[in-house]
Amino acid sequence: MTSMISYSTEVQQAIEGKKPIVALESTIISHGMPYPQNVETARMVEQIIRDNGAVPATIAIMDGKIKIGLSEEELELLGNSPGVSKVSRRDIGQLIATKKIGATTVAATMICAELAGIRVFATGGIGGVHRGAETTMDISADLEELSNTGVAVVCAGAKSILDIGLTLEYLETKGVPVIGFQTDEMPAFYTRSSGFDLTFRSDDSAELAKVLKAKWDLGIKGGAVIANPIPAEHALEESFINGIIAQAMAEANDNGISGKEVTPFLLGKVKELTEGKSLVANIELVKHNAKVGAQLAAAYNQL
Amino acid sequence: MTSMISYSTEVQQAIEGKKPIVALESTIISHGMPYPQNVETARMVEQIIRDNGAVPATIAIMDGKIKIGLSEEELELLGNSPGVSKVSRRDIGQLIATKKIGATTVAATMICAELAGIRVFATGGIGGVHRGAETTMDISADLEELSNTGVAVVCAGAKSILDIGLTLEYLETKGVPVIGFQTDEMPAFYTRSSGFDLTFRSDDSAELAKVLKAKWDLGIKGGAVIANPIPAEHALEESFINGIIAQAMAEANDNGISGKEVTPFLLGKVKELTEGKSLVANIELVKHNAKVGAQLAAAYNQL
Amino acid sequence: MTSMISYSTEVQQAIEGKKPIVALESTIISHGMPYPQNVETARMVEQIIRDNGAVPATIAIMDGKIKIGLSEEELELLGNSPGVSKVSRRDIGQLIATKKIGATTVAATMICAELAGIRVFATGGIGGVHRGAETTMDISADLEELSNTGVAVVCAGAKSILDIGLTLEYLETKGVPVIGFQTDEMPAFYTRSSGFDLTFRSDDSAELAKVLKAKWDLGIKGGAVIANPIPAEHALEESFINGIIAQAMAEANDNGISGKEVTPFLLGKVKELTEGKSLVANIELVKHNAKVGAQLAAAYNQL
Ligand SMILES: [Mn+2]
Ligand SMILES: [Mn+2]
Ligand SMILES: [Mn+2]
Repeated sequence: MTSMISYSTEVQQAIEGKKPIVALESTIISHGMPYPQNVETARMVEQIIRDNGAVPATIAIMDGKIKIGLSEEELELLGNSPGVSKVSRRDIGQLIATKKIGATTVAATMICAELAGIRVFATGGIGGVHRGAETTMDISADLEELSNTGVAVVCAGAKSILDIGLTLEYLETKGVPVIGFQTDEMPAFYTRSSGFDLTFRSDDSAELAKVLKAKWDLGIKGGAVIANPIPAEHALEESFINGIIAQAMAEANDNGISGKEVTPFLLGKVKELTEGKSLVANIELVKHNAKVGAQLAAAYNQL
Repeated sequence: MTSMISYSTEVQQAIEGKKPIVALESTIISHGMPYPQNVETARMVEQIIRDNGAVPATIAIMDGKIKIGLSEEELELLGNSPGVSKVSRRDIGQLIATKKIGATTVAATMICAELAGIRVFATGGIGGVHRGAETTMDISADLEELSNTGVAVVCAGAKSILDIGLTLEYLETKGVPVIGFQTDEMPAFYTRSSGFDLTFRSDDSAELAKVLKAKWDLGIKGGAVIANPIPAEHALEESFINGIIAQAMAEANDNGISGKEVTPFLLGKVKELTEGKSLVANIELVKHNAKVGAQLAAAYNQL
Repeated sequence: MTSMISYSTEVQQAIEGKKPIVALESTIISHGMPYPQNVETARMVEQIIRDNGAVPATIAIMDGKIKIGLSEEELELLGNSPGVSKVSRRDIGQLIATKKIGATTVAATMICAELAGIRVFATGGIGGVHRGAETTMDISADLEELSNTGVAVVCAGAKSILDIGLTLEYLETKGVPVIGFQTDEMPAFYTRSSGFDLTFRSDDSAELAKVLKAKWDLGIKGGAVIANPIPAEHALEESFINGIIAQAMAEANDNGISGKEVTPFLLGKVKELTEGKSLVANIELVKHNAKVGAQLAAAYNQL
C-alpha cells in the first residue's frame, strides 16, 4: 500500500511533526474553474489553511500514485492538462493502474485522506440525493462515503439543485452526523438557509473536535458533515437563486431533458443566469470552509 | 475507548464470570411511558432477564460515558429528567462530548452492546421503512444498523404503521436474517401476524444460538432480527388495530399531514384510539422479548 | 472459523501451490438446469477453468460446512437432491447450523470466496435492481455484496428483465467498479448490448488484474463487476429477446401479477417463449465467463 501513496515535502514534515493537516479535493481545480484562475484559487485556499494553523494537503492521482499534497509543478499539471479524469471511489484502482491523471471528488478525497490519516477535509459542497431520485435512483456516492469513511467534511451544505430534504433523510438513515457550524439550519451552498433544520449545532471548533474524537475513538465508522454556511456578505439572495433554479428546471422540462442529463443542465444554467456571481460565491465559501477546516484540524490535534 | 464505557457492578461481574448478558434500550424508558411507570417497567423487565438465567444491561449515555447497566439512581435520573435526548448512531459522539443524558434507540443500543461484547438485545419493536418511503426516503437507521452491527435483536416485529413488506425487502437486500421464533410469519408488534411470510423459523433458542454463532464465527458482519410475536393472550385484534391505523391515516390525509409528521401523528392516534390497550400490549410484549432474549443469551453462552 | 470451511483436495493443493483459483456458484446447478444436464455443465465449466490455467472451486454448503470445491459425489448430491436451498448472505448461518444442503447465490458465493482468499468468481449474470423497484424496493442482495466483499465477478451483465439503468446507478452510488471487458457497453446477459455505456473498458486481463490489485492493496473494500458480453455467435437477437420481455410484461400486467411474483413469471415466460434458445445461450456465456475468469485469476496471480 505504502508504495501507492506519495506525500509532498510539506505534508511529510507535518506528519512527522504531528501538525494539523486539512485535505483538499482537486475536481474543483480540474473541472470547476478555467486555467489559470483554478490554480491561483487552489494556492489561495492552501495559504488560508496555513494562515489558520494547519497544513494543506491537496489530493490527486498521478503517475500511478495517490498524491497527498501537490508540488507547484503537479498543481500546474492538474490545472492545465486536457482530459483529467474525475475520480470517485469506483475509479481509484483504474487510475492508479493506468497511470492517468485523476482529480478526486469528495468521495475519493475522503478515502485518500483516511488512508493518509487525515481527519478533516474542506471543500465547497457535498453531493446528495438528486431531485427526482425517487425514480432515477441518482444519489451521489459522497453520501455512501460519509457513512463508511472516517473523515469530517467541512462544506457549505449541498446545492439546492439537489433535493436537500431527501439528502438529510438519507444521511439520517445511514447514521451520519450533520452538524451545523454556527447555524441551526442546513445551508444550501450559495445561500445560508435551506428551510431544513439540523438536530445539532456547534458554535465552537473545540467542541466539534471533541464530538468527532468521541465517535472515532469508540470505533464508530463513517464521517461527518460540518455544515458551514457561506458568509452572509457573499451569499446570493435566496429568491434570486431559487428563481433561477425554478427557471432552469422549467427549461429542462420544456426541452425534454431528463434523467442524468438534468444535473449538468441545471448547473450550466445556474452559471449562465447568475452571470458569474455564483463563481465568486463559490470561491468565497471554499475559502471560508478552508479557514474553519484549519481551525477544526488544529483543535482536533490538541485533544 | 475504554474510558468512554462504564459498566454497572452487576454487568461487570457478569463479564468477569462469563455469564450471559442481555442488552436493553432506554428510549422506551425516557420516551415510551410516563414516570414512574417507566422506571417500574424497566425494573420488571430487568428482573425477568435475571429470572431466566441472564444479566440485564440497560444502556444509556450519561456524564460523557456509555453506561452498560444502570444503577438505581441512574435509572431514576433517566426516567425522571426533562429533556433526555433520543440517541441514534449519528448522535453518540455528540452526547458523549457534551455530557448530556441520552436514551439509546435500537440502532444506538446495538452499537453500544457490540462495543461491550453483548450479542443479544431485547426490545419492543424495530424501526423500518415508513409507509410512503418510496417518495419520502424515510427509513429507520435501525435497518442499516442491523446490516452492520453484530447483535441479535429480539423484538415483536415492526409496527404496522410502518410498511412491513418494504421493511422485509430492505432487510433482504442488506442480507439481514429475519428469523421467526415459533412463528412462520413476521409479527406486527401489537398483533401476531402481518400477512408476510418469513423464510426461516426456529422453535428453539439452542438452534437460534447456533445459527448466530455460525454467522459471527465466520466473520459475516451484521445482526439478526429474532421476530418473537406478542403472546396471544395480550395481542390486539388485527381488525381493531388495522381499523385504527386506517382511520388515523385518513385523518392525517384530511389534515394535510405529510412527510416526517405522519409517524408521530399515527403513533399518537393509535395511543388515543386504543384507550391504553396498546400500552398494556406494549409492556407485555417487551416482557416476553426479555424472557426469550435471556434464554437465547444463555443458550449462546453455552456454545 | 476454520472448522466451518472445508476444501476439496484440488483446491487445497492449489492454495498450497499458490496457483490461481476461480470460484463458481452452485444455484445454477441446483436451480438453473435439470439433472443430469446441470452436473454435466458444471463439470464442463470446471474443465474450461483448468484448460485456461486456473483451478475451479465450486462452492456450496453441506454437512454444516462451506465447501470450497466439490468432489464428484458432492456435485452429484447437489445436482440431484430434492429441496436444495438457495443461500444468500442472510441464510449462511442457518444452513450451517441446520446442516442442510445449500446452493450459493452470487452474494453468498462472494462471501465464501473471500473467506477462502479467492479473488475471482465466474458466473452467468448478477442480480440487480428490479423493474418497478422505485415502489417495490426489490433490489438483489448481490449489489450490496459487491459494495462490501472483495471479489471480482466475471459475468455477462444483468438480465434485461431487470432495470439495467437503475442497477448501474445503484452500483455507482455504492462505488462499485463496473468494467467492460472488451466492450464499451453494459451487456444484458443474452445480448451483447443494453444501450447503457460503461465508464471504463479494459481489453486485457493483465490490465484488469492490476486495477483490482491497486484497489485491494489500498484496502478499498468491495468487489467489481467484470462485464463480459456473451460471444456474438451465441447471442440472442436483441429485438427477439426484448420483444419477448415486453410480451411477458404485458401478460403479467393483464393477469394482475405484481410485486415479487413478477420476476419468476418473467423468467418462466422467457424460458417458454425462447423455446430453449435461452438455455443454450446461458450455458455458452457461462463457459465464456469461466475462460475469462481463469485468465484473470492467472494474471492476478502473477502480480
Ligand atoms: Mn449519480
Ligand atoms: Mn426517518
Ligand atoms: Mn428481492
